[in-house]
Amino acid sequence: MEKKSTYEQLRPLLRPATVAVIGASRSPEKIGYQVLKNLLDGGYPPDKVFPINPKATQILGLKCYPSVKDVPVPVDLAVIVVPARIVPIVLKDCAKKKVKAVAIISAGFKEVGNVEAELELVKIARSAGMRLLGPNIVGVCDTVEGVNASFCQGLPLKGEIAFITQSGALAIGLVGWTVLKKIGLSDLVSIGNKADVNEIDLMEFFAEDPYTKVITIYLEGTDDGRRFLEVAKKVTKCKPVIVLKAGKTERTVAAIKSHTGSLAGSDIAYDAAFKQSGVLRASNFIELFNWAVALAKAPLPRGENVIIITNGGGAGVMATDAASEYGLKLMDIPRDLAEKLRKFMPPFGSTLNPVDLTGMATREWYEGALRVALEDHRVDAVVVLYCHTAITSPLDIADGLITAYKATGARKPVVAAFIGGIECEKAYQKLTKAGIPAYASPEEAVSALGAIYQYARYLRKPKRTYPTIKVDRERVAKLIYGALKEGRRALSPAEAAEVALAYGIPVPEKPLAKSEEEAVVISNRLGYPVVLEVESPQIIHKTEVGGIKLNIKDAEGVRKAYREILESVRKLAPEATIKGVIVRKMIPQGKEVIVGMHRDPVFGPVIMFGAGGILVELMKDVSFRIAPVSMEDAEEMMKETKVYALLKGFRGESESDIESVKEVILRVSKLALDFPEISDIDVNPLFTYEKGKGCIAVDVKIMMQR
Amino acid sequence: MEKKSTYEQLRPLLRPATVAVIGASRSPEKIGYQVLKNLLDGGYPPDKVFPINPKATQILGLKCYPSVKDVPVPVDLAVIVVPARIVPIVLKDCAKKKVKAVAIISAGFKEVGNVEAELELVKIARSAGMRLLGPNIVGVCDTVEGVNASFCQGLPLKGEIAFITQSGALAIGLVGWTVLKKIGLSDLVSIGNKADVNEIDLMEFFAEDPYTKVITIYLEGTDDGRRFLEVAKKVTKCKPVIVLKAGKTERTVAAIKSHTGSLAGSDIAYDAAFKQSGVLRASNFIELFNWAVALAKAPLPRGENVIIITNGGGAGVMATDAASEYGLKLMDIPRDLAEKLRKFMPPFGSTLNPVDLTGMATREWYEGALRVALEDHRVDAVVVLYCHTAITSPLDIADGLITAYKATGARKPVVAAFIGGIECEKAYQKLTKAGIPAYASPEEAVSALGAIYQYARYLRKPKRTYPTIKVDRERVAKLIYGALKEGRRALSPAEAAEVALAYGIPVPEKPLAKSEEEAVVISNRLGYPVVLEVESPQIIHKTEVGGIKLNIKDAEGVRKAYREILESVRKLAPEATIKGVIVRKMIPQGKEVIVGMHRDPVFGPVIMFGAGGILVELMKDVSFRIAPVSMEDAEEMMKETKVYALLKGFRGESESDIESVKEVILRVSKLALDFPEISDIDVNPLFTYEKGKGCIAVDVKIMMQR
Repeated sequence: MEKKSTYEQLRPLLRPATVAVIGASRSPEKIGYQVLKNLLDGGYPPDKVFPINPKATQILGLKCYPSVKDVPVPVDLAVIVVPARIVPIVLKDCAKKKVKAVAIISAGFKEVGNVEAELELVKIARSAGMRLLGPNIVGVCDTVEGVNASFCQGLPLKGEIAFITQSGALAIGLVGWTVLKKIGLSDLVSIGNKADVNEIDLMEFFAEDPYTKVITIYLEGTDDGRRFLEVAKKVTKCKPVIVLKAGKTERTVAAIKSHTGSLAGSDIAYDAAFKQSGVLRASNFIELFNWAVALAKAPLPRGENVIIITNGGGAGVMATDAASEYGLKLMDIPRDLAEKLRKFMPPFGSTLNPVDLTGMATREWYEGALRVALEDHRVDAVVVLYCHTAITSPLDIADGLITAYKATGARKPVVAAFIGGIECEKAYQKLTKAGIPAYASPEEAVSALGAIYQYARYLRKPKRTYPTIKVDRERVAKLIYGALKEGRRALSPAEAAEVALAYGIPVPEKPLAKSEEEAVVISNRLGYPVVLEVESPQIIHKTEVGGIKLNIKDAEGVRKAYREILESVRKLAPEATIKGVIVRKMIPQGKEVIVGMHRDPVFGPVIMFGAGGILVELMKDVSFRIAPVSMEDAEEMMKETKVYALLKGFRGESESDIESVKEVILRVSKLALDFPEISDIDVNPLFTYEKGKGCIAVDVKIMMQR
Repeated sequence: MEKKSTYEQLRPLLRPATVAVIGASRSPEKIGYQVLKNLLDGGYPPDKVFPINPKATQILGLKCYPSVKDVPVPVDLAVIVVPARIVPIVLKDCAKKKVKAVAIISAGFKEVGNVEAELELVKIARSAGMRLLGPNIVGVCDTVEGVNASFCQGLPLKGEIAFITQSGALAIGLVGWTVLKKIGLSDLVSIGNKADVNEIDLMEFFAEDPYTKVITIYLEGTDDGRRFLEVAKKVTKCKPVIVLKAGKTERTVAAIKSHTGSLAGSDIAYDAAFKQSGVLRASNFIELFNWAVALAKAPLPRGENVIIITNGGGAGVMATDAASEYGLKLMDIPRDLAEKLRKFMPPFGSTLNPVDLTGMATREWYEGALRVALEDHRVDAVVVLYCHTAITSPLDIADGLITAYKATGARKPVVAAFIGGIECEKAYQKLTKAGIPAYASPEEAVSALGAIYQYARYLRKPKRTYPTIKVDRERVAKLIYGALKEGRRALSPAEAAEVALAYGIPVPEKPLAKSEEEAVVISNRLGYPVVLEVESPQIIHKTEVGGIKLNIKDAEGVRKAYREILESVRKLAPEATIKGVIVRKMIPQGKEVIVGMHRDPVFGPVIMFGAGGILVELMKDVSFRIAPVSMEDAEEMMKETKVYALLKGFRGESESDIESVKEVILRVSKLALDFPEISDIDVNPLFTYEKGKGCIAVDVKIMMQR
């Protein structure tokens, strides 16, 4: 038998044809009553609802069954609201009845430490091929089939936004809030303890669901970072995903652990994962839904040219500030377009961007200006601002805008902010419905268009490429397993350098010369100037015994230095065993950067690039990606830092060898993926030279986990 | 006669006993009609309103007068709505009538280039002792006396927030918006072109106005930065001032110039001025009013210990993230308090901070937990979060919170976020009224408490001290006037060093030796190692002619270097006049910082401190203050940078001489204040050494303005 897709598996959960309520109750104060009542109140056909309660014959006018097994028709979804200890029993009944999916509202499992009991539920469900949502959930609200299988008092409004939430309390609150704000949802799913179905499965479902245009998630933590990343990458290719990820600080992470028991990956890793998979990260739920509405309603822009049209200079200024904050590019309006716009403003209006129609602007001017802007092939998106004036009606202005938007084919995103009272509120609801997402403030409108751009730019990104990297894996395996066998958690500097070399990360060669002649041969090969240092297990502070000579410029100097070192060391440390003299090339000062890796418990290897050195450590000028890092990721992460400008040639300096740094990033990424034993890699400083002259890792540190 | 205070002068404008409307009209579509109607609709006594129109005898049931001079009683405020060219004529009538204040709604002055006409208005008003608001305004709304002297369709709700706006369009829009949001205002004042009365005067008025608790301003630019700073410093001592300052980017500044003709000071200078005067800077109007409501309603906290109480883990997590963003310090809850809180939650609730009462929380639990928290002397402020649940009513929860708040004396700030629909909206309006500012999202509540803390911390700051600084002012005057006389806009490096020395900023001494013997004497005095460099007006690249010798370690070396330099220069640059050889001590590498000054057109000298060097220039790790900089300002500005951690001794390094850097900041501040001719000062790098060893300015640049 072919394995069903996640979409097929979850259909009975989210679009059920029949629903049984196990634990349905006659007492109105009980959740078992509320869930049943909510189902009926939500408009779900009563003949498809089956209350299960061995002690009742009828509830709310419906025939009651002692067990789900007694229901005369197949059951798609069983909602379970019985006490925790009864759940496994009724779950087994569901298995026998071949119920397709269960939603367990009952609490008292992992969230109170009852891990075993929860695993038992999963076992029962899996063996029967049932998908299981919960336990410890508020329920599921599906506005498509009108299923309110939850104890949320009402269904959300119909809409195209799916909302998945790891917080149940938030679910109920946000149903009310979205109704108040006239924001429609396709579904609201509380995922509770995520014993089986989690946000990743639901992303897969909603990606294929024809009723959902935008997927939103309130997330405290995912349990499988790498699957999250893979699935999110696929889903965002067809639908936007917006996540509100809470838990940025240590205290927050502690709070999350205490109330959901979730694995806490670092916020940095989440941020990197979202970036790499095109997931938009909202910073609060108002922003989350503002963005979702925009992405559900507006088309995507084809280019970067944004125009702001306003009737108030102040609002225009606010939007301009916000545009810079949210990464919108305000276009310089070409003269011919400016002339066309001139028709819709008084002589003291402005055709700079923001285009200021002034407080005299009428419906006709707004309509005309928007139409002219949208008809111009150089304009890609428009922000329309309107402050309620004494001479205009907001609904009238809205009509004008909608007319212009539709007349030009509704092909470019237009967002609006209407500043005013109740009439403006009505106007922006009308606008949003018509495809022009509209808000109460310029910043919200600009932020929403910013989200549209963020998504559009992600979709336009070049395909990721992962070049084949040749490495000497066996050599590294030997070093790492050797060290682990010795019970060490860190490689020695020499071992780390050898690992780096084996993975093609340039490190200074440090060959040992055992004679004056050999020192000269090596020096000639390495190139001058060179450094000579004595190699002796007994000597730690080489300088104190005259064991180091710097900046040696020729063969003659090498001979002299070799002799002087031996002489001095023999004199000052007569007891030391001299193994020879290390010869190394003087490393010229390069631009200092850092490449690093830390293995995140949720996402695996997180690769870091940034400015190196002590001062910049304070500055925290760094960027992150989850391995494997592609060529394009490496380039993007470098560009996210400020030190990139230095590498590109700040203040007339020549460009550094950026390609060689990119190469090091890819090789560190590969090293981390090849050896799960490695917990941390630190290439710092990585000296970077002029273009074509490469880079060199002055210091490499490698730590292992047990 | 004693000069009236600003408060006395502006009382007739903002709390008028009688109002004349000059240009009152019978045509409902005219502003002259609307203003009159609005006055009456707003509830202002009709017998105190006097329409002026030579062509009418009666408007809206009121007797009409041909001129303001004909009004039989004294006129406090004349609102002028006649065409621009008539304004001076009626203004002269006002002067004759001894009208106390005028508000000129009419446009067509400076904003369209008519600068002269506007100056003429000011002249007329000043000579008659009338204060003048406008021109080009929407008007004034005063909810205290019920004066709607504007073309805003209605009055705002009564309240304690004064709103001053430089954007007229925003005024009308925000009246509607504040009514919708149930936010009350004491006044809304549109300041238009600010020919006479500006935001500074109004700040002074509202500081004394008993009906206003919080002053809010939408500001695009002030014309007198230094007066703004002085007045704001005084006003914030008694009332919070919140400013929404638009115009952060170049494009925004251009937009502002184009529509208000305001002088554009740099955003950096505004930011510094706000910081120094305790003005809170909001980033959008929603935040502005959220903060204003909080500051109008809640008491100030006495300490930093904040507790979050929630019924949903998710909301708690969001608030915790926000707390870190808005600078709130969540307290570690002491065991005895935790025990008391335990009574108001199920066993799986949490007494960590956030305190999680869980979804089972009732009115009694909320009330009990809040009361226990407020009664504890260690707790200074509380954030209460509530997600609407199936088992509770938001209004009920609100009542519980209000009861606890009042029972404990309403002495500590409590803010709340109620997440849900229409019932929550009602609940948070009730809460706000009762002194618990409440919002729709955790972030808004935390941000509001953050604003309360920002203000409270400002009030607690130590008094500013300005130590007397001894300098040689005449020596500097000679150098600067000398250079200006020669038409130069920059001092030479030697001159700049001399200025620095005269103002006590340590620079390396660079005495000139005219003989080998003299070079030795100087070197002995400075201490070794020293550097010798040839001084010749013809020689620019000293190295190329062998004109520099570094790292000279003793007198013998000095003699040898002196001879070699002369020999080499004579040979390689035979035509050059050799003035002698400069002797300077080798400057040891210190921690690099920068101290600078740029003279802002609006605020005057802006002093900068930050990390020095090329890399950190990319990082822009800098902070700013308006001169004069106090000891405390200098300290605070240093602490705002990341490089401060380096100076304090990062990673076990010893602490640097922070006091000496502070001293340089104060001295640069004084230099800038003493010489308005100086446009820019750049002390970079300033090498800073170990504590007690001072700092030294390696390079000093001084530029002048004409």
